[in-house]
Amino acid sequence: MHDLVRRLHPLCRSITGDGVRGTLEIIGEHLPLAVREVPTGTEVLDWTVPKEWNIRDAYVKDASGRRVIDFRESNLHVVGYSVPVSGTYSLAELRPRLHTLPEQPGLVPYRTSYYAETWGFCLSQDALDGLRDEDGPFEVRIDSTLAAGSLTYGEYVVPGRLPEEVMISCHVCHPSLANDNLAGIAVAVALARRLREPRHTYRFLFAPGTIGAITWLARNRERLHLVAAGLTLACAGDPGALTYKRSRRGDALVDRAVTHVLRDRPHEVLEFSPYGYDERQFCSPGFDLPFGSLTRTPYAGYPEYHTSGDNPDFVTPAAMEDTLDALTRVVEVLEHERTYLNLSPYGEPQLGRRGLYGSLGGRSDTKQAQMAMLWVLNLSDGEHGLLDIADRSGLPFAAVKGAAESLLDAGLLKEKA
Amino acid sequence: MHDLVRRLHPLCRSITGDGVRGTLEIIGEHLPLAVREVPTGTEVLDWTVPKEWNIRDAYVKDASGRRVIDFRESNLHVVGYSVPVSGTYSLAELRPRLHTLPEQPGLVPYRTSYYAETWGFCLSQDALDGLRDEDGPFEVRIDSTLAAGSLTYGEYVVPGRLPEEVMISCHVCHPSLANDNLAGIAVAVALARRLREPRHTYRFLFAPGTIGAITWLARNRERLHLVAAGLTLACAGDPGALTYKRSRRGDALVDRAVTHVLRDRPHEVLEFSPYGYDERQFCSPGFDLPFGSLTRTPYAGYPEYHTSGDNPDFVTPAAMEDTLDALTRVVEVLEHERTYLNLSPYGEPQLGRRGLYGSLGGRSDTKQAQMAMLWVLNLSDGEHGLLDIADRSGLPFAAVKGAAESLLDAGLLKEKA
Amino acid sequence: MHDLVRRLHPLCRSITGDGVRGTLEIIGEHLPLAVREVPTGTEVLDWTVPKEWNIRDAYVKDASGRRVIDFRESNLHVVGYSVPVSGTYSLAELRPRLHTLPEQPGLVPYRTSYYAETWGFCLSQDALDGLRDEDGPFEVRIDSTLAAGSLTYGEYVVPGRLPEEVMISCHVCHPSLANDNLAGIAVAVALARRLREPRHTYRFLFAPGTIGAITWLARNRERLHLVAAGLTLACAGDPGALTYKRSRRGDALVDRAVTHVLRDRPHEVLEFSPYGYDERQFCSPGFDLPFGSLTRTPYAGYPEYHTSGDNPDFVTPAAMEDTLDALTRVVEVLEHERTYLNLSPYGEPQLGRRGLYGSLGGRSDTKQAQMAMLWVLNLSDGEHGLLDIADRSGLPFAAVKGAAESLLDAGLLKEKA
Repeated sequence: MHDLVRRLHPLCRSITGDGVRGTLEIIGEHLPLAVREVPTGTEVLDWTVPKEWNIRDAYVKDASGRRVIDFRESNLHVVGYSVPVSGTYSLAELRPRLHTLPEQPGLVPYRTSYYAETWGFCLSQDALDGLRDEDGPFEVRIDSTLAAGSLTYGEYVVPGRLPEEVMISCHVCHPSLANDNLAGIAVAVALARRLREPRHTYRFLFAPGTIGAITWLARNRERLHLVAAGLTLACAGDPGALTYKRSRRGDALVDRAVTHVLRDRPHEVLEFSPYGYDERQFCSPGFDLPFGSLTRTPYAGYPEYHTSGDNPDFVTPAAMEDTLDALTRVVEVLEHERTYLNLSPYGEPQLGRRGLYGSLGGRSDTKQAQMAMLWVLNLSDGEHGLLDIADRSGLPFAAVKGAAESLLDAGLLKEKA
Repeated sequence: MHDLVRRLHPLCRSITGDGVRGTLEIIGEHLPLAVREVPTGTEVLDWTVPKEWNIRDAYVKDASGRRVIDFRESNLHVVGYSVPVSGTYSLAELRPRLHTLPEQPGLVPYRTSYYAETWGFCLSQDALDGLRDEDGPFEVRIDSTLAAGSLTYGEYVVPGRLPEEVMISCHVCHPSLANDNLAGIAVAVALARRLREPRHTYRFLFAPGTIGAITWLARNRERLHLVAAGLTLACAGDPGALTYKRSRRGDALVDRAVTHVLRDRPHEVLEFSPYGYDERQFCSPGFDLPFGSLTRTPYAGYPEYHTSGDNPDFVTPAAMEDTLDALTRVVEVLEHERTYLNLSPYGEPQLGRRGLYGSLGGRSDTKQAQMAMLWVLNLSDGEHGLLDIADRSGLPFAAVKGAAESLLDAGLLKEKA
Repeated sequence: MHDLVRRLHPLCRSITGDGVRGTLEIIGEHLPLAVREVPTGTEVLDWTVPKEWNIRDAYVKDASGRRVIDFRESNLHVVGYSVPVSGTYSLAELRPRLHTLPEQPGLVPYRTSYYAETWGFCLSQDALDGLRDEDGPFEVRIDSTLAAGSLTYGEYVVPGRLPEEVMISCHVCHPSLANDNLAGIAVAVALARRLREPRHTYRFLFAPGTIGAITWLARNRERLHLVAAGLTLACAGDPGALTYKRSRRGDALVDRAVTHVLRDRPHEVLEFSPYGYDERQFCSPGFDLPFGSLTRTPYAGYPEYHTSGDNPDFVTPAAMEDTLDALTRVVEVLEHERTYLNLSPYGEPQLGRRGLYGSLGGRSDTKQAQMAMLWVLNLSDGEHGLLDIADRSGLPFAAVKGAAESLLDAGLLKEKA
């Protein structure tokens, strides 16, 4: 996963353009991705697909010809969607177009202007402080194009036995930022490769933030009733604890599955808010899809957020593994959640004669497997699924699922119709 | 407000009589009050309007003719509703009729006997300890009348566009006690004068405790369905934090409005109990009106309560201003609470092209106004009013209301029918 | 109660046999118990009544003829339901059949093997450590019978005015263990003797654990709809605080009654779990009876649990009295819980003229009895019973009940139909 982060890092992604295409191409080396192109001007919900932006080079040169700001060094140096520029400016003329982080003087900020045509550069406060009027005039050039083209996104679908879908959505529009969201992309790719003949259909969406999700929603309206559970996945590799933000519904299956899995590791659970990643769109009130958001340190919660400090060294293989492990367990819950009916609901059935219970009584160290059987029998009244039982008993889902399988084999349960 | 407290303080109020009339007359200098007189003997719910009580003078003189207890010094010295008395008593005979506070020896208690005809005096324990048998016999005189008359209360109504009413009720039956309830009266008068063409109709009731509220209820039964929200207002000027006692319903609009406003200042919220002020009557189970109670330090919660220590120096202008400010904000919530429908509920509408969203992306310091717009859009599904949105988002009601107005102007919302 | 514990202690109880019969006989000296015998082989729910087990003697003798393990010293020394044995064994051959508690080397464990035919001995680790190979060979004898017979249980019913039943169930299958469950038996007997012409019918069940409850349930299926409240009573005499485990329903009348009573003493409340005592059977999903479990230190929560340390010295008269007192109060709640209707629900009725309210106003030390009247009047709207009122007001049930009686006498309440 970390290799994929490092490989994707240099690309200059934005909400459209060749940076997204290159990113999807690399993902496509790992997954048979379907890539979609949606032309500029297409109306999507309340929005319109914007012009496509591409950039080849950009710089500010001082009077000596030295590049004092250089796109080739980091694509963060150019405000995303900057229009083409070629001219000479004094430092005073340039200043309003130079964005810095005075509180974090060594870092370059990430800035965009998708829907207002303008241009600008980003640089560290230290670099800005090093510029002097007398080094000018400055030659400014942004070799970009902003023109009719298309918006690009990719989808990978793992067909399941059921048409109901579990969706994982990652934004692919941020340029050289590692945790936000190359780590999320890398974890999603790894998860997708682990799935083997799942029960649900799994859909992985790699699309630019906001406009990409809106475009996908606009083109898939008639299929949205099939979305059984969804997650936006972002900031998946920083060293902080996992954080789950609930769906707008708050108690959807995905909310219950993720909070169950996180119960046994350091984590935080946040209520829904209409900000953050594309859960904003999936959970808009007209759709109200069961989408939560899984991150490690959430949106804007770490100092490196949206700066050049969010580089591949900031994300760790261990953190990405941990995110992947949690997601794998969430998938296990989603795949195996069922409601059973106890076929012997009057008193406890005699587990001993079915070989399901230790024969030596009086001991108090009753094992987890036996407790799980008793819980499954007691709550399998048609009102409680395995996840309810796991939550109420405090037992891991896997133990409850294992108990249900044993009881099913013994003819003591049947699946609720 | 503090001037009004000082001016009202000397009057000898009770549940009937000229003290109440004089109080309403002074309030009438500030508000065009309608004064009602209800004759003695009128049946009101389970009660009967009692005889009217008036008092001109009262004293206990020692053998030397010195007034050792003197009504002219403080009207607290006479038990409220004392019948007329004129006679000579030894100290031993008098003792059962002398009420003190042994634990607070410098303070005179407040005592009444409305429904059992008797008489008595209140004095400080220190004063009682100074009386000696040998100073007697004592000449006792209470120059009162208890006779057919009427019960008096006042109402001030600010007509609104809606017939639905917001009621503020203050008891006006306590004699020289400042926080309980001259401060409440003064704050209510100030609030009433602030209202300008409100949406709801506002009714301010200045009535004696218990029997006054019962009389008002008995005479307004057919109009009670119009009471949308109500508050009893008392103890509004002491230096303690604001305290809200919920209505019997517990989650009425008034409960939600007041607790929202108090959220951002030091405060306490109490559950309903059938004791305290006239919320006891308004929230009796047959009426079950949405009446909460707003105080600072609540009922019996301060040592000066129902003693001569509750004088105008005990209430502060700052505390009354704070109570008034909170009430003003409660009125703002009640006036502007609405449920809207998002007319563009599929995905977020593009706020940028409507001038409602900053154009420079990537910054994390999203402003409160923008968050408020996102929250209003997300929750305006017909199930949530602005107050719900303010509570769930943690934003101030004013911000949510402002966002709704902007979105309404932009054609993105409509009011729910 | 403690005498009864001491008297029952030496009997070798098991799930069948003369130990249970002897126990019921002694209980029968205090209560006119109905004793039931259910033949071996009877099908009861998913189970079958097992063979009856009786034991006369058992020992392990060393080569010198000394009894190194001796049933006559403590019946815990034999694994319950051990089949007859007579033979000579080396220590190495014996070891797999010798059960100890290595962590509590001075105590003898309690072990059974009801449903797998085997045999064994229990002894302290210290005693085991004292055995040497060279002291053998060892003569082993278990003079037991395991043969067709019957399962025995006892019932005592106190008929009430209502057919609805309150059940108290105690397991009677543990041999010489005092807290588990001779203390429970003794407290149940004492409670039964206190009942005088109750409103509900009271049923005390003394039955072996699991199979006894299952047998009772199987034979009483058509009457289970009459069970209004039930408790399993166990571990009733240790010095720990009272612990209540809720019924499967969680908010049944018994749950509300017991938690109300425990509110005013040190206690713990546990959620339902399908383990512990016979609430497992009563709360199986097909029956889902309103059965909670009352103990002091719960199941497996004290080091003496299921060891020879649980002897009559471990239970205290004071703890048993406290359990009995709590149960007596629970019975008071169950007997007197009613829902009343306030016949004067508009405003407060005038309590003063009915002699129900102190006449001297202004004092803040309003008495509990008056508060209880106000609460009963306010909440007697047909939706709240006395227990609701006691819980919501924080007043003791007895105060609320007393207030309701006064108000009923005054014609202000009637019982809800």
